[in-house]
Amino acid sequence: MAQKPSIPKGTRDFGPMEMARRNYIFSTISSVFRLFGYSQIETPSIENLSTLLGKYGDEGDKLLFKVLNSGDAFAGVEPEMLSNSNALSMKVCEKGMRYDLTVPFARFVVQHQNEVHFPFKRYQIQPVWRADRPQKGRYREFYQCDVDVVGSNSLLYELELVQIVDMVFQKLCINVCLKINNRKLLSGLAQVAGASDKIIDITVAIDKIDKIGLDAVKEELMSKGLSLEQIAVIEPALLLKGSSSEKIEAMSGILATSEVGMKGIEEIKELFGLIESANIKIGYELDLSLARGLNYYTGAIFEVKALDYAIGSICGGGRYDNLTGIFGLQNVSGVGISFGADRIYDVLLGLDKYPQALDSAPTVLFANMGASEAAYVLPLAVELRQAGVSCELYPDNAKLRKQFEYADKRAIQFMVIAGDDEMAAGSVTIKNMSTGEQSVVPCDKLVSFFK
Amino acid sequence: MAQKPSIPKGTRDFGPMEMARRNYIFSTISSVFRLFGYSQIETPSIENLSTLLGKYGDEGDKLLFKVLNSGDAFAGVEPEMLSNSNALSMKVCEKGMRYDLTVPFARFVVQHQNEVHFPFKRYQIQPVWRADRPQKGRYREFYQCDVDVVGSNSLLYELELVQIVDMVFQKLCINVCLKINNRKLLSGLAQVAGASDKIIDITVAIDKIDKIGLDAVKEELMSKGLSLEQIAVIEPALLLKGSSSEKIEAMSGILATSEVGMKGIEEIKELFGLIESANIKIGYELDLSLARGLNYYTGAIFEVKALDYAIGSICGGGRYDNLTGIFGLQNVSGVGISFGADRIYDVLLGLDKYPQALDSAPTVLFANMGASEAAYVLPLAVELRQAGVSCELYPDNAKLRKQFEYADKRAIQFMVIAGDDEMAAGSVTIKNMSTGEQSVVPCDKLVSFFK
Repeated sequence: MAQKPSIPKGTRDFGPMEMARRNYIFSTISSVFRLFGYSQIETPSIENLSTLLGKYGDEGDKLLFKVLNSGDAFAGVEPEMLSNSNALSMKVCEKGMRYDLTVPFARFVVQHQNEVHFPFKRYQIQPVWRADRPQKGRYREFYQCDVDVVGSNSLLYELELVQIVDMVFQKLCINVCLKINNRKLLSGLAQVAGASDKIIDITVAIDKIDKIGLDAVKEELMSKGLSLEQIAVIEPALLLKGSSSEKIEAMSGILATSEVGMKGIEEIKELFGLIESANIKIGYELDLSLARGLNYYTGAIFEVKALDYAIGSICGGGRYDNLTGIFGLQNVSGVGISFGADRIYDVLLGLDKYPQALDSAPTVLFANMGASEAAYVLPLAVELRQAGVSCELYPDNAKLRKQFEYADKRAIQFMVIAGDDEMAAGSVTIKNMSTGEQSVVPCDKLVSFFK
Repeated sequence: MAQKPSIPKGTRDFGPMEMARRNYIFSTISSVFRLFGYSQIETPSIENLSTLLGKYGDEGDKLLFKVLNSGDAFAGVEPEMLSNSNALSMKVCEKGMRYDLTVPFARFVVQHQNEVHFPFKRYQIQPVWRADRPQKGRYREFYQCDVDVVGSNSLLYELELVQIVDMVFQKLCINVCLKINNRKLLSGLAQVAGASDKIIDITVAIDKIDKIGLDAVKEELMSKGLSLEQIAVIEPALLLKGSSSEKIEAMSGILATSEVGMKGIEEIKELFGLIESANIKIGYELDLSLARGLNYYTGAIFEVKALDYAIGSICGGGRYDNLTGIFGLQNVSGVGISFGADRIYDVLLGLDKYPQALDSAPTVLFANMGASEAAYVLPLAVELRQAGVSCELYPDNAKLRKQFEYADKRAIQFMVIAGDDEMAAGSVTIKNMSTGEQSVVPCDKLVSFFK
């Protein structure tokens, strides 16, 4: 009894049309990366578990897919080890599947520090794996498209990322808003409130203001142990309205006494100045409630929202001052941004924004009318391909109706038919499958017909 | 103490230059696949172990990378299970990493049989994983490039694969010889010798004739239990010399009494006839000693050898009559061929056949002479990118010598410099980094300078 075929939950097959759409996204994104001078690299799908563990928090460690050691993985395992599932899995698994592209990139930079030139500008488009609970739009295998530069503190790279976001979404014809914040503004805010130790609680609460409102945010801050006086320092920042430059102005008053806060003001002012001079087409704004993985970002933070389609952020990133420190290379600042290919896929599909004619079907199907007719068209197919026109010959001398059906199902644009009459005349009959129009074309004019 | 970063043995990082070379190979191969009407698909990296196990023989089962179940993988494991490492690994691992692209493709076809149109022409370029002993040229993670068509017995598809091989290696500028055989000829030979049960032993022995010589092959056949009379029937086939058509003629005499053998003669005659009419540029020949994974091929067998570089076969495949039968869909014949990207990489490198200027370095580096100078060139960079010219701005106002050094190390072709004089004149100075030539160009002529 044959097994019913299936794939692991949270993974997907991609058929021809899905691949054509995905390749459109990947090639659009990577072409923009290359226009800005970023080079592609790839790292292995599996890394030593020691490289991955402890880099994504306890929750991340749990979501790592571990790979069983090859050979006799359980040799030397004592029965009492069974009581500690976690320790046992470390003993029998030395490797794990890549969880994101950032940690492998940091490992790459440190391992190859003598081969790469700093500032090192790289992009990486590869799948990652997470043993997360699968649900709509969340997968256990999915692609990330990361672009990062390491080895420079220059804010010109923040600008470059903004320009990349601008160009990618213009090319993809998706209306977006880029939200920008700076981690130092949030640190400064916690500092002036005398609650630097509660920076995470403060930003988690602020992050919800759109959803739950000001009063609920204040309640949450109180429940986390902030005093009314501390909340009163933070509250004005939450009430800020107006343009980005008005918000920056107001924040520089609020943060006047905080060194890190004023450094943040300086950075955000410079970045907004650069962006304004760069003729960016997409909308952008300072969003003080933007938090994004506060634990490792140290400067600018970015997030991109689609304006015409309800979905979480489709792109995000920021600056981290010590990306490679975990692997022993200190003081290498990095800034990068990651495009969520799966969400962008959904946005383009939902808004019907894929270009026409993305399919990889061939342009031409030569009908098969028998052995001598096939011998007549075979050299024509060779010529077309040499001219860059994709084509194929139907494999059997089947009824023409069946051959037309095949062309139709595969959305092939043209049928080329040659029977006795055409062979005698040195020509072929070309049928345009969408208009139904037929033309008789001499064989030596076939290539020019399609070019 | 930071850990010294490393990657699992048998895996590799690919830096910018290696990626540029790999992408050249992949895009050349896939562009040819598309010219012949094949569509790309992708399958997940991890499959259910039940899909993979038992498909590659005992040795293959051992070489599968198994993925530990997420959550508490060892819950319910009894101490006595530790004595059977193999059974235990099945209990705690439900998933495995893809071992090749063929079995996942067969699974895909059966699972999506109502969505795809037959004959279904697909290509697939993805990594596979094998827990093999790593050595020079053999990796635990490597890419395969497979092209297959399922759902037709037509020999026109064998021809198509030959044409694909021809076009790929012409485009890559690698001299190759395509060796062709047919499994039915080997079955016929075993049958006329009255040794159909020893078909594997016979072909394994024949396969070695180039290395060990006729006498040693005969000795090996005897050691496998073939009688002198049986060997006398096989020997003439081993002694065949001459052109492919002379070999076919001789074989049709030897196989006259075998139905399967004569079917093989008919197929190989038809295929060679088709190939001769198709104006193939690469060398090709009938090679009766070609065996290739005899256990599943049923018709034509292909193998490609590089002529100017010593390495194993760089491409191979054939027809298998029941690809999808293991997953319950009977009588779907398939034929396909797989390009070994890693070996092709080595051949191109060894023969120095990569095109010049494969690197993904940007074309232009704008020197950074300070904030106002940067503001002057930023819009020029935007213009260049919109015109498709890749460029970047050096991130800091560093010494010009340092900026030149950076351009040099990254092999950037042009430096564009704008100081007070250029800004006053509305121009820039362009330095060709390879010739040293300098030109002063008005800003509004910059794009046309590079196009």
